[in-house]
Amino acid sequence: MALFSSDIKNLDDLFVHTLKDMYYAENRISKSLPNMISKASDEKLRNGFEKHLDETRSHVERLDRVFGLIDQAPEGLDCPAIDGIIDEAEQVASEVGDNNVLDAALIASAQAVEHYEITRYGSLVSWAKQLGHEEVANLLHQTLEEERATDEKLTQLAKSSINRSAQ
Amino acid sequence: MALFSSDIKNLDDLFVHTLKDMYYAENRISKSLPNMISKASDEKLRNGFEKHLDETRSHVERLDRVFGLIDQAPEGLDCPAIDGIIDEAEQVASEVGDNNVLDAALIASAQAVEHYEITRYGSLVSWAKQLGHEEVANLLHQTLEEERATDEKLTQLAKSSINRSAQ
Repeated sequence: MALFSSDIKNLDDLFVHTLKDMYYAENRISKSLPNMISKASDEKLRNGFEKHLDETRSHVERLDRVFGLIDQAPEGLDCPAIDGIIDEAEQVASEVGDNNVLDAALIASAQAVEHYEITRYGSLVSWAKQLGHEEVANLLHQTLEEERATDEKLTQLAKSSINRSAQ
Repeated sequence: MALFSSDIKNLDDLFVHTLKDMYYAENRISKSLPNMISKASDEKLRNGFEKHLDETRSHVERLDRVFGLIDQAPEGLDCPAIDGIIDEAEQVASEVGDNNVLDAALIASAQAVEHYEITRYGSLVSWAKQLGHEEVANLLHQTLEEERATDEKLTQLAKSSINRSAQ
């Protein structure tokens, strides 16, 4: 989250702060996915990343709607967590020579990104309910379920073929 | 993972690289937990963090055993992901004034740490099995289950009282 944001005095402030964190994170993920697509060799994995890029763009639009519903301007705050996760993914990818091992590494990196989103959207849904923002909670829950489904698909891809090819 | 590690040529290299990433991560988490314990107000949350500090130390010892089983010296590699997640946790905690809101923020931060560990140990267990390291896979699976249990306890704590108090 941000280095220089305003103080967090109540749960509403914490909720908005974390929304801004995820707005930055989704935008950073959108920018990094084309690089992951270009590096993936397995066709199913490449297709999965392409579909997830479309989903990620729709998650940004959903956050725009959420900001509107709570009368806040959509904006991002620096998020050291997603920066660290994506920087690490790019470093590891740059160190792998073999294409099959690179696919295994890309899946693991993408799952680290998904788990970050799952935990943050999980907190946001819980807080939105506590704060009585039912429509907002429903929107964020849709994104949470899509992130969980993506993580599950990545696990299946890893189990079905890619890790075996990497061996 | 590391900025200056050797190249990753096969799945075994990727496995060892990620083990070293987690060795660094578990040690960084051990160092940050006392700070989170000192900031937590809710007694159940403080007790939960204290128990998890003991578990985290045992996870480091388990990694020592894993390194021994695959004839590698235990060592850590810089891990920008866990650094980013913990830096963000500390920044947010420093911005919260109210104790109940701080507890809600601490739970969310701890869950981000748990999810990072869940995804990495998930990949490590899968790769250990592919590589035929059955005993190693079993040890890493024990840690994975403990991380999942901690995440579940944090979710229950958030639902039961702390988020409501923060409202």
